[in-house]
Amino acid sequence: MPEKPISAGKPPFYEATANECDLFQTAWDKRLPLLLKGPTGCGKTRFVAHMAARLGVPLYTVSCHDDLTASDLTGRYLLKGGETVWVDGPLTRAVRHGGICYLDEVVEARKDVTVVLHPLTDDRRLLPLERTGELLEAPDNFMLVVSYNPGYQNLLKQLKPSTRQRFLAVEFAFPEPAREAEVIVRETGIDPDGAMLLVRIATNIRRLKGIDLEEVVSTRLLVYCATLLMAGVDFDDALNAAVIEPLSDDADVKAGLREAVAILRS
Amino acid sequence: MPEKPISAGKPPFYEATANECDLFQTAWDKRLPLLLKGPTGCGKTRFVAHMAARLGVPLYTVSCHDDLTASDLTGRYLLKGGETVWVDGPLTRAVRHGGICYLDEVVEARKDVTVVLHPLTDDRRLLPLERTGELLEAPDNFMLVVSYNPGYQNLLKQLKPSTRQRFLAVEFAFPEPAREAEVIVRETGIDPDGAMLLVRIATNIRRLKGIDLEEVVSTRLLVYCATLLMAGVDFDDALNAAVIEPLSDDADVKAGLREAVAILRS
Amino acid sequence: MPEKPISAGKPPFYEATANECDLFQTAWDKRLPLLLKGPTGCGKTRFVAHMAARLGVPLYTVSCHDDLTASDLTGRYLLKGGETVWVDGPLTRAVRHGGICYLDEVVEARKDVTVVLHPLTDDRRLLPLERTGELLEAPDNFMLVVSYNPGYQNLLKQLKPSTRQRFLAVEFAFPEPAREAEVIVRETGIDPDGAMLLVRIATNIRRLKGIDLEEVVSTRLLVYCATLLMAGVDFDDALNAAVIEPLSDDADVKAGLREAVAILRS
Amino acid sequence: MPEKPISAGKPPFYEATANECDLFQTAWDKRLPLLLKGPTGCGKTRFVAHMAARLGVPLYTVSCHDDLTASDLTGRYLLKGGETVWVDGPLTRAVRHGGICYLDEVVEARKDVTVVLHPLTDDRRLLPLERTGELLEAPDNFMLVVSYNPGYQNLLKQLKPSTRQRFLAVEFAFPEPAREAEVIVRETGIDPDGAMLLVRIATNIRRLKGIDLEEVVSTRLLVYCATLLMAGVDFDDALNAAVIEPLSDDADVKAGLREAVAILRS
Amino acid sequence: MPEKPISAGKPPFYEATANECDLFQTAWDKRLPLLLKGPTGCGKTRFVAHMAARLGVPLYTVSCHDDLTASDLTGRYLLKGGETVWVDGPLTRAVRHGGICYLDEVVEARKDVTVVLHPLTDDRRLLPLERTGELLEAPDNFMLVVSYNPGYQNLLKQLKPSTRQRFLAVEFAFPEPAREAEVIVRETGIDPDGAMLLVRIATNIRRLKGIDLEEVVSTRLLVYCATLLMAGVDFDDALNAAVIEPLSDDADVKAGLREAVAILRS
Amino acid sequence: MPEKPISAGKPPFYEATANECDLFQTAWDKRLPLLLKGPTGCGKTRFVAHMAARLGVPLYTVSCHDDLTASDLTGRYLLKGGETVWVDGPLTRAVRHGGICYLDEVVEARKDVTVVLHPLTDDRRLLPLERTGELLEAPDNFMLVVSYNPGYQNLLKQLKPSTRQRFLAVEFAFPEPAREAEVIVRETGIDPDGAMLLVRIATNIRRLKGIDLEEVVSTRLLVYCATLLMAGVDFDDALNAAVIEPLSDDADVKAGLREAVAILRS
Repeated sequence: MPEKPISAGKPPFYEATANECDLFQTAWDKRLPLLLKGPTGCGKTRFVAHMAARLGVPLYTVSCHDDLTASDLTGRYLLKGGETVWVDGPLTRAVRHGGICYLDEVVEARKDVTVVLHPLTDDRRLLPLERTGELLEAPDNFMLVVSYNPGYQNLLKQLKPSTRQRFLAVEFAFPEPAREAEVIVRETGIDPDGAMLLVRIATNIRRLKGIDLEEVVSTRLLVYCATLLMAGVDFDDALNAAVIEPLSDDADVKAGLREAVAILRS
Repeated sequence: MPEKPISAGKPPFYEATANECDLFQTAWDKRLPLLLKGPTGCGKTRFVAHMAARLGVPLYTVSCHDDLTASDLTGRYLLKGGETVWVDGPLTRAVRHGGICYLDEVVEARKDVTVVLHPLTDDRRLLPLERTGELLEAPDNFMLVVSYNPGYQNLLKQLKPSTRQRFLAVEFAFPEPAREAEVIVRETGIDPDGAMLLVRIATNIRRLKGIDLEEVVSTRLLVYCATLLMAGVDFDDALNAAVIEPLSDDADVKAGLREAVAILRS
Repeated sequence: MPEKPISAGKPPFYEATANECDLFQTAWDKRLPLLLKGPTGCGKTRFVAHMAARLGVPLYTVSCHDDLTASDLTGRYLLKGGETVWVDGPLTRAVRHGGICYLDEVVEARKDVTVVLHPLTDDRRLLPLERTGELLEAPDNFMLVVSYNPGYQNLLKQLKPSTRQRFLAVEFAFPEPAREAEVIVRETGIDPDGAMLLVRIATNIRRLKGIDLEEVVSTRLLVYCATLLMAGVDFDDALNAAVIEPLSDDADVKAGLREAVAILRS
Repeated sequence: MPEKPISAGKPPFYEATANECDLFQTAWDKRLPLLLKGPTGCGKTRFVAHMAARLGVPLYTVSCHDDLTASDLTGRYLLKGGETVWVDGPLTRAVRHGGICYLDEVVEARKDVTVVLHPLTDDRRLLPLERTGELLEAPDNFMLVVSYNPGYQNLLKQLKPSTRQRFLAVEFAFPEPAREAEVIVRETGIDPDGAMLLVRIATNIRRLKGIDLEEVVSTRLLVYCATLLMAGVDFDDALNAAVIEPLSDDADVKAGLREAVAILRS
Repeated sequence: MPEKPISAGKPPFYEATANECDLFQTAWDKRLPLLLKGPTGCGKTRFVAHMAARLGVPLYTVSCHDDLTASDLTGRYLLKGGETVWVDGPLTRAVRHGGICYLDEVVEARKDVTVVLHPLTDDRRLLPLERTGELLEAPDNFMLVVSYNPGYQNLLKQLKPSTRQRFLAVEFAFPEPAREAEVIVRETGIDPDGAMLLVRIATNIRRLKGIDLEEVVSTRLLVYCATLLMAGVDFDDALNAAVIEPLSDDADVKAGLREAVAILRS
Repeated sequence: MPEKPISAGKPPFYEATANECDLFQTAWDKRLPLLLKGPTGCGKTRFVAHMAARLGVPLYTVSCHDDLTASDLTGRYLLKGGETVWVDGPLTRAVRHGGICYLDEVVEARKDVTVVLHPLTDDRRLLPLERTGELLEAPDNFMLVVSYNPGYQNLLKQLKPSTRQRFLAVEFAFPEPAREAEVIVRETGIDPDGAMLLVRIATNIRRLKGIDLEEVVSTRLLVYCATLLMAGVDFDDALNAAVIEPLSDDADVKAGLREAVAILRS
């Protein structure tokens, strides 16, 4: 069974927008678990990948969903050669061998996930594996990071206060316009003016949140848009395919967005 | 275990109605995932089959539904000769060997599907197989395409914004009348005037959407109708069996449709 | 494993009430899937059995229900001699060996059934078996027929328009009185006047639909009633056991029905 | 695997209250399925046991419930000696070897039960066993009987009209007072006057149905009460333990019942 | 597999509050099933244990709950040495070897439990084991006892009348004050005055039922309280830990209870 | 299979805030089960760990959740070498070998957990293992402790009165300010004035409970905050990451909290 962490490739570029790198470093030093809050596509996943690379530890990322159970994190028995063989899940691998385990959108996971998070997030730092009878003590180079988008929570899907209070927490926002433009230039090779126009469009659209849009345009979509432009796609087509259509299905909302962009460009 | 992609046969004819072929080509070149939005029977599936054939890559099509889980896409263990043997699902086959994986009506799938889509749709392009412990990196000739019908979405069945914002998106509509008539002529051998009459009938019915009809008449139904006519079926019977009855169960709505057709033909 | 289709016996008598036999024949010739709509007991099942016998092909009938899944249609692995062995379901048998597969009350089936119906009902005519990795192409002598009762549909149980638009559709009604009486005579040997009295009673009761009765009296119940009469059962007792009691549990409704019958006979 | 039907013992005494024995005999002769409707404890189960004994055929009784599935009726595979072995369920045993299969409170069963009832209840009289690939034709000495209590039905638990219309139906009521008293005398040895007093009490209580009582006193409870009296239990204590307490938990309702009984006895 | 019944130890003391011991004895003699109704902690479980010891038969007690199924009562197959081995559940053990099977809070069990109770509770006294194909006839020294708390029932959790009418029923209440005090003295060694003070407190609190308290103080809690007092705990602390806190989480209700106790003691 | 209890490490420091240590000791001596009620992070888990260490017995802690079943507590069969092997759960280990079993947030567990708690919490002190057929009698050095947070309970998630009345109960609150500051000093090495400032901030925030905050700041968060301060993090950043962000996602609530803190510090 390979022990290769579920994550790979070159340390991604990341430029801190506030004190989040220092706070992550302190949490790592003091072995405290960390909670990241923020909207879709604001760079939470990239931030964790960046810090893992900086600290030189493997990163185990799990996208949580409605059907994710504790066993998906800790491991399960498989039948091999007529024998049941235990296979570690990503969380167990991180605890057993060191590393960062990152649970993306943790509020989506099923409730039994809390059973493994609680003893890992108080001063015991333990991972009980009831199925194997093991009791793993997390090494100093283990860290748990979770994230969620506060904009999506509802009564059924919430992090219980008794779980949330076990984490240091940091809120993410989109980067400052100049910095966001820099990211787009670096990722796509677009000229700075073109990047800044996209950021200005995004900033305007982000103000509409909660009115007609459930979610706002992410830096990722701006990078997609610049990619299309650099591939020679017409501006309107690129904006449509990378920004307008991914944001809404409503004809009126889409027309309004197009109009707002036209005014900005005139 | 055969590695033959789930799709087959001759490259189907497809004529672009807008810039969708160019956008698909750019997304393929830049390795960006693509989202197709549009009503039933407007040609999304045929478009993907056409592009796969044009690019010379296998196509793996999956019709999503309420009970489709991540395992149906990635694979599962089967018991063979007292040994558990891993069998790749269609998505894993596309990632492992290259090709286009097309998830039709993706909003119908269960939520754990997002767990495999997220790392595949950001710059990592990874497919983690937790059950085998593998971490597949998608080759350059892998592309993910998903589709849904915006007209069907409801509060329970929606693509999460955090998922939707990972795709370039393009909206489909029915082809222009002249082009739709051409399709019908080519598929059935009906004369152009007969094809155009069917398109005029369809155009009138499509205006009723949202009033009495949940969905409008698709090009497919027009092809069915022309097929019946070419087989010698009476016009009223053909229209009834291929257009009126598939659209509604309500006696009043069906009478209204028949009356509207009668006026058109008079 | 026997390959005998799930259906058997002598070709049942069926007399067309409209153009349904011709339409079935054309759908068969052109390899189009067919949807039958109509009330309980109006002869849909018998019609399909009749056409299958006429065409000389095996018929695989499946009564759909709340818990019917795609695997019930396509097949599943069974453990035999320590080995998992694949066993075809009725749909797969029909596709593999030719024949008509008839899904009775298809709206009752679970939603994953659509995943096997969609590729079978467009021009690809394919049945993907993900569990075995096979991709079956339907032979020319395969046909898919589905049915439902429009009177039962509700918001939770509906054929999705994207599914319904893949079928030619035909609506069934009860046969004309004279023809219905003929059927009863032929099935039971009752005299024509007795048969016609039962049909007149049924016709009157059928007008009450939607007022006090959820469903109306079927031809089958009239055949039951005539069977009892021919066995020497008293007229009131036969009517009660074969018509009144099967239709309602409400004492007032049952009294009303009896009164209406009494007036007819006087 | 024993083939002994799930039912046993001496043919129970049963005295017809109407034409139900003749109707059952005719249904048996003509091979028509039968539906029994009636309140709890009115003797439906005993009636079926009586007829089975009279006809000299084995009886397979199944009490239906919320979790009863088609497999519970038809059979399932069990693992024996490393081999999966098919074990017939009660319905399959009745079809394979002849006999009456009686599904008590059939509306409680899960919906997939209809899939096995439909082909058994039309003129095909077939039982398809998809798991084994068998198609059993019911022998002449097979009969299907089902029952339900119309007083319990609700929107979620109903026999679908398409299922109900496949049965001859007969409604049961409590026996006439004199006959009910006879039953009590025969079962317990109580004197006729004592039995008649109990019947008079029951008759009065039965009139209250739908006001304060969800269900009325059954003949079985009267037999229990007489049994206690014959064992020397005080009249009030016996009535309380066998009639009042089984009927209600409400203190007012129970006081009302006791008062009504006191007036009757005075 | 041990055949030791699930119950053990010395016959507990029990003093009848009414005719319940005689009624139990008669039900045992006449082989009738028994239903016990009453509030939490009034002694139902102890009464059954007492009667089982008096009759010298083993007692099999099952606390029912939301997920208890028929298989938990009847037994299931386990895999042993590559072979499936049947293991009797507690009900089957009682039927096979004699004894009392007591289902505590039977309304909590899942609905398929009724399938095993019905044939056991009419004159057949049969336990069909469909999985093994066995049909067990209950011996004369088998008895079924069930209980529930009428105060908890709701629309979703009710004993169906068709099930309830199969039992003799007896209602339990708390013992008379003098008798309840005696129990406390005997269990804890507290002086009679102390015991009577606790009973007086309990009696007062029991009058509040349905106003602020969902359930009233049980004899068990009074025994706990006396145990704490005998261990040297302060009166207020003992009352708080054994009576007030177990009854309510509401600060106002708890203050009210303390005040009521203070008045009683002054 | 290791028998090491799921809990480990040095006996944590704990200073009683009231009589809880004595009450725990008495419950241990008298073998009564104990229920702890109180808000998140008030020290319930640490208290149990402290008492277990003081009594010199192993502690088995289980964090309960929506999907926790009785089998998770009692044990299950695993397949090893073609043989099913029983593996004790944490509760069974505690009963078999002695020790304290602590079920944290017991109201979250599934309802079948009550089936194992009931016979363990009355005078029988028995743990029936139906799957193995064993009946374990709890030794004198076994104790059951459960906890829940009364602030979270709702109609769906409640400890049934019939379960709650089986426990001695004690309510926890946050420690007195001076004592809470002492804890923070001891855990982090912060100076007493800094600790007292944090406690004053916490006390003010705790008064807001039920207005804008679902849960109040726990001692754990204050320890986190002091940890950050001792690591050189700026006061506002530390308060933000350790107190404000873990408590709320609402911008207005967070601004209000920051303002309240600013006033306190000025």
